[in-house]
Amino acid sequence: MNTTADRPHVVIIGAGFAGLYAARALCRAPVRVTVVDRRNHHLFQPLLYQVATAGLSAPDIATPIRRILQRQANATVLLAEVRGLDPVRRRVVLDDDELSYDFLIVATGATHNYFGHDEWARYAPGLKTVEDALEIRRRVLLAFEKAERETNAERQREHLTFAIVGAGATGVELAGALREIAQHTLASDFHNFDPRATRVVLIDAVERVLPQFPEPLSLKARAMLEARGVEVRTGCRVVDVDSGGVSLQCAPSSEATPERIPARTVLWAAGVKASPLAEDLDAPRDEFGRVRVQPDLSVPGHPEVFVVGDLAAVESGGRPVPATAPPAIQEGRHAAAAIVAELAGRTRLPFRYKDRGVLATVGRRAGVASIYGLRFAGFVAWLLWLLVHITWLIGHRNRLVVLFEWAWAYFTYQRSARVILSREK
Amino acid sequence: MNTTADRPHVVIIGAGFAGLYAARALCRAPVRVTVVDRRNHHLFQPLLYQVATAGLSAPDIATPIRRILQRQANATVLLAEVRGLDPVRRRVVLDDDELSYDFLIVATGATHNYFGHDEWARYAPGLKTVEDALEIRRRVLLAFEKAERETNAERQREHLTFAIVGAGATGVELAGALREIAQHTLASDFHNFDPRATRVVLIDAVERVLPQFPEPLSLKARAMLEARGVEVRTGCRVVDVDSGGVSLQCAPSSEATPERIPARTVLWAAGVKASPLAEDLDAPRDEFGRVRVQPDLSVPGHPEVFVVGDLAAVESGGRPVPATAPPAIQEGRHAAAAIVAELAGRTRLPFRYKDRGVLATVGRRAGVASIYGLRFAGFVAWLLWLLVHITWLIGHRNRLVVLFEWAWAYFTYQRSARVILSREK
Repeated sequence: MNTTADRPHVVIIGAGFAGLYAARALCRAPVRVTVVDRRNHHLFQPLLYQVATAGLSAPDIATPIRRILQRQANATVLLAEVRGLDPVRRRVVLDDDELSYDFLIVATGATHNYFGHDEWARYAPGLKTVEDALEIRRRVLLAFEKAERETNAERQREHLTFAIVGAGATGVELAGALREIAQHTLASDFHNFDPRATRVVLIDAVERVLPQFPEPLSLKARAMLEARGVEVRTGCRVVDVDSGGVSLQCAPSSEATPERIPARTVLWAAGVKASPLAEDLDAPRDEFGRVRVQPDLSVPGHPEVFVVGDLAAVESGGRPVPATAPPAIQEGRHAAAAIVAELAGRTRLPFRYKDRGVLATVGRRAGVASIYGLRFAGFVAWLLWLLVHITWLIGHRNRLVVLFEWAWAYFTYQRSARVILSREK
Repeated sequence: MNTTADRPHVVIIGAGFAGLYAARALCRAPVRVTVVDRRNHHLFQPLLYQVATAGLSAPDIATPIRRILQRQANATVLLAEVRGLDPVRRRVVLDDDELSYDFLIVATGATHNYFGHDEWARYAPGLKTVEDALEIRRRVLLAFEKAERETNAERQREHLTFAIVGAGATGVELAGALREIAQHTLASDFHNFDPRATRVVLIDAVERVLPQFPEPLSLKARAMLEARGVEVRTGCRVVDVDSGGVSLQCAPSSEATPERIPARTVLWAAGVKASPLAEDLDAPRDEFGRVRVQPDLSVPGHPEVFVVGDLAAVESGGRPVPATAPPAIQEGRHAAAAIVAELAGRTRLPFRYKDRGVLATVGRRAGVASIYGLRFAGFVAWLLWLLVHITWLIGHRNRLVVLFEWAWAYFTYQRSARVILSREK
């Protein structure tokens, strides 16, 4: 049945941006491709914060991997957990099986880093998976419900305080969305408090928000956040997190008593920690556990193994490549091209990141963008953000539905996914 | 602030169809209304099977109760678990509080009944809540993924067998949708088996499907199901359920060895068990635990307490009223009207069920309907089904999105919510 059985076998672990685009780029290559992921869906992570803030439904940004690769005759999709790698025997160890490979592309990504305080995770969930997003949505919506039933003013205030750790794109977008929910969406839904009094505190140890942006745009983003009522606390290091809030050590008073922010909801969008699979590769790694790859994205000593996406510490033109979707896509495609070149007896080229720019949104009609060196802030940047995200979203249905949801939210100020799912199931 | 504080207090427990429409009907009444629900959302249960079969996202059919009643000045919504009722002191006991009432409307509904075998529930989940639907969706989608990885033909066959217990509307609609997924949606997504070989077995102890329908329509629905490849096993009683399948005792061979249907996925859509809150009312109850209400829907001896919806055993014109959405809505409105009449010094009227008919769908372009005594089967019934469900769905956004999803699914044969959520969270 399978006429491609004798072709070289490319195993791709992880169907995020890097893995998926690697698989697609091998569409016409004389190989057979197996994509292994522990999830059945590819997740469009740049919009995950909108699932967390009840603006989108999870299926709007999650597409079955199987469906995406349905027409790619040389690709098979396996829903399985990878237990380990054996680069010497060229084997991928699954929970109940093994896969042998001729080429391996590892694209299992990274998660947040609690800087040695993993016990904070239960108080301050991160935002990497659909389940994370639904958990954050649950906590946010429940906080308002608890505030409605709370008669003690101080405790009510704690329920209405949201602390977000990490002022990169995810943190900034979460903060903006939470203030918008408070200001508009829920404005007339409660009787015992005014949701507009909701406090959103955005915290980062670095001195500015969106550090990957040009500084003038960081300043504009900060001003937009503050205009929307977000308290921006940069230069503040989190020294403790518990069920009642966060404690901060703010420069230059780093020897003073930590400042306490009582907040019943703390969200974590900081740090980078590579997926543990990197350890099996016996390759040099950076401080975050990411694999330091060769210029062609392969692993030193294993030209048949590539590491791409957030799991890789990649340099291009002497500068580190950011851990976002566009480089992940380019890296995935590059690894695929390297395999094709190898099979054709051509030389592999070094990876070169084509930096088209960065984009973030702060709220309705507010964003910052630096595209091909041009800088935008405000309405135009917001429109660009919408356009780029709709364009890159996978599937026509998702594009139409997300556009509809955005238009509906824009005109009605409502968010359509205000559903609290209980945890016990 | 609250100018209605001295008005009589109506507490409504449960914001399903009965409770929600009771609250809405009290919109202009000289009362203050408190709606208590342990969920933040009203669920449009007639479409829940579509969430379970990946056709719709949960938020499409779940609307925040708070949002629905936002403009109703005399209504407050509380997200709280009701622990008990004290009809003598006129108190509703919440987890951490008490509510006193002048009128009480209990509308907490019913769940499935495992006929004394609650241990079957873990093998055969029911379909009453959003979480139930997501769990069923997870099991169904995972079954196909497991079949893809299974090399043993017999075990693969077990993964591809779905047994549905209960051939009422929910069971019939689930069975039809599962065959459709197998036949069309997944047809070209797998490499190691043909999804079209999926076996769907619909089981009921009663001799016909859709027993609440006129018999000719039941026969037509059965024929449509069978034409779509569903194995209909009526007259068969389930005598055992475990992780490997179900055992049936089929009439007339009720003394024979039970017949075994190996199936890794068993879904439960049978039986009625009243919510436990009914026990606190000290009122006569039927065999399913439902409260036998007075003709005005109040509880014997407590004219200020009403029971409506699936929790009530209601008769109208000497016949039992079915446990579906239309009577629940009418009962909720009737209880509201009785309260208004009471406050105005008028006599309460007995409840009279206006039976407009019944509707069910078997799959694309296939349904059965009996409306105002007119009977339809096939395409027209299916159109009527779509029309009625879109009309009654709450919220313009939901109507538009669900219509879009249906149109998209109709033309592409795809289902947009094929997302497996993991359970550990």
